[in-house]
Amino acid sequence: MFSYRIEATTGSARAGSLTLPHGTVQTPAFMPVGTHGAVRGLHPAEVERAGAQIILGNTYHLHLRPGEDVVRTMGGLHRFSTWPRPMLTDSGGFQVFSLQGLRKVTEQGVEFVSHIDGGIRTITPESAMEIQVALGADIAMAFDHVVPGQATHEHAEEGMERTLRWLSRCRRRHEELVQPSVQTLWPIIQGGTHPDLRLRSLEGILERGPWTGIAIGGLSVGEPKPVMHRVLEEIVPAIPAAQPRYLMGVGFPEDLVEGIARGVDLFDCVAATRNGRHGSAWTMSGRVNVRNASNRTSEAPLDSDCDCETCGRFSLGYLRHLFVAQEILALRLVSIHNIRFLIRVTELARAAIVAGTFAEWSRDWLDRYHRAA
Amino acid sequence: MFSYRIEATTGSARAGSLTLPHGTVQTPAFMPVGTHGAVRGLHPAEVERAGAQIILGNTYHLHLRPGEDVVRTMGGLHRFSTWPRPMLTDSGGFQVFSLQGLRKVTEQGVEFVSHIDGGIRTITPESAMEIQVALGADIAMAFDHVVPGQATHEHAEEGMERTLRWLSRCRRRHEELVQPSVQTLWPIIQGGTHPDLRLRSLEGILERGPWTGIAIGGLSVGEPKPVMHRVLEEIVPAIPAAQPRYLMGVGFPEDLVEGIARGVDLFDCVAATRNGRHGSAWTMSGRVNVRNASNRTSEAPLDSDCDCETCGRFSLGYLRHLFVAQEILALRLVSIHNIRFLIRVTELARAAIVAGTFAEWSRDWLDRYHRAA
Repeated sequence: MFSYRIEATTGSARAGSLTLPHGTVQTPAFMPVGTHGAVRGLHPAEVERAGAQIILGNTYHLHLRPGEDVVRTMGGLHRFSTWPRPMLTDSGGFQVFSLQGLRKVTEQGVEFVSHIDGGIRTITPESAMEIQVALGADIAMAFDHVVPGQATHEHAEEGMERTLRWLSRCRRRHEELVQPSVQTLWPIIQGGTHPDLRLRSLEGILERGPWTGIAIGGLSVGEPKPVMHRVLEEIVPAIPAAQPRYLMGVGFPEDLVEGIARGVDLFDCVAATRNGRHGSAWTMSGRVNVRNASNRTSEAPLDSDCDCETCGRFSLGYLRHLFVAQEILALRLVSIHNIRFLIRVTELARAAIVAGTFAEWSRDWLDRYHRAA
Repeated sequence: MFSYRIEATTGSARAGSLTLPHGTVQTPAFMPVGTHGAVRGLHPAEVERAGAQIILGNTYHLHLRPGEDVVRTMGGLHRFSTWPRPMLTDSGGFQVFSLQGLRKVTEQGVEFVSHIDGGIRTITPESAMEIQVALGADIAMAFDHVVPGQATHEHAEEGMERTLRWLSRCRRRHEELVQPSVQTLWPIIQGGTHPDLRLRSLEGILERGPWTGIAIGGLSVGEPKPVMHRVLEEIVPAIPAAQPRYLMGVGFPEDLVEGIARGVDLFDCVAATRNGRHGSAWTMSGRVNVRNASNRTSEAPLDSDCDCETCGRFSLGYLRHLFVAQEILALRLVSIHNIRFLIRVTELARAAIVAGTFAEWSRDWLDRYHRAA
């Protein structure tokens, strides 16, 4: 049920197939984020037509609303949301550590203030598993202690070591709750920007294995991009090749290409839909602010290189009008473009890896993208 | 290009075909309202799939944003919005008379304050034609002087007589601007709730003809429903049978059935999308407030009788969750249902008229609907 097959490699970049209970994901792949069991602003059929093979659900948000008991009663997140393809849930760790309402971290778990009703809630490694099993995604994530990108060695070490201790508790509880054929659990490498801690984290994870995939957390949390690249270069080669590697919370289009070049297989990020809702679109000719007055009578598509449903049908002038008139269709149409743009980057990268031309393709792509930016 | 053929009648109710430059509309028909060149919250493909044969664009809103010059430059409202089927634009009369910002009505036209920028604008019968010709819908509406539902005989007469004088100016300007094969102009019967004024209005309209269709305006503006029915019963039989009749700004589901029974062929109303955005749905089992806590774990569709895309895919429990979590997909899904609900009423009515069973069908439908309400 959970297998990963590598089909081609170019340098560190890999093209593979990740088989999951709800289908097979061809990697590298980008996962749109469905915070509340819906990719924001989009219909599941639109997400499918944009080429998404797997989406992510947020445990923190779904725990608060509608609550995992509702989702379980409704047959799990797949049935509830009508998303038919694979799904992954995060553990809530990133959300509770990045929210203002964080109250207290103890060895037991994290106490935080709900952003919905101000009530005090607790998530522990065990409850993070209970929630995710109730949600029923193909892949559940371990509950981790996330530290900021600028964390000192001491602070990062504390978070990393706690994440390992919590991983043992996650694994135990997850095994009690669910058959291994139904849902798998992936661990998360922590350790901030400190190579020794990252390697120690991976070592601790492998001691607690086996696993069907391994995630890299705590990146894209405030550190400069070259630092993120260096961490990837140091840690990814140490991950056993047979494991799919998921870089959490990344990224922007260039982050996908840089990550794939360094051996990453899976990505997720809210930027596609968040930027879409603000009228900001990625294109190979640079970032387009749809609202710009210069687009007023543009009959061109948002991105003439794009094969998405928005670019195939609507003019930039019309999209601008919808934004200016505050028509909510606007948010949807630009979000569709942005999601398709990221998915297409992964499709093009995969084709180049399979064709053995990834080194040239990625160099040309990055050149063109940065020149336009 | 503009012809109307009656295919069947039962009592006053008619089933017909209205041929327009962008296609044929089978009547009775409901027109969803696309205020800013988009039915609020919906993709034109969704509006088509809900069965809409014709939609309405608002001249007032499109004049202010993006402006008719932009729409003309972009090839007209059909091309701009990508809506491929017939379209009708109102004249802006209803909007300027119902807005708070109304400044002054003179014989020349109406001065009002833009709700966008507070600027003072004027619409005259001539400029209403210029704007609508630039928008390029299949059907343009005459610029009318609308009075409230409680207007006195004197006030209603003033508005009705002015509407007739304005109609002559509309017709003259429209003929100067556009070929009769491209866009047609429909007059509007005014006269408030006063039968003598309504008949005088129709008489004045017919004196200024010929026309390809006739609208009834100034109803559903605050008068009780039995009064609206009485006005329809008095005025519709006097309209030549060959003219398609359009009851403006109406209605709710029961208004469609009551209107069709009294010989109306076309309707428009914003309630379907406005209620949809507030989570209020029409069903044959009564009005459903999607947000109700009792829907929390309902696996049933919003309306088990409905064939819309929303009811075919999503549970009421999921729709409720989307509303509570403020996911904008919620607004779309309930709007699709409400639009489909109204269109289906017209489809069922048409089938009953053709089958000769409209009298029983409409009685049963109204009984069932009112019992559930």
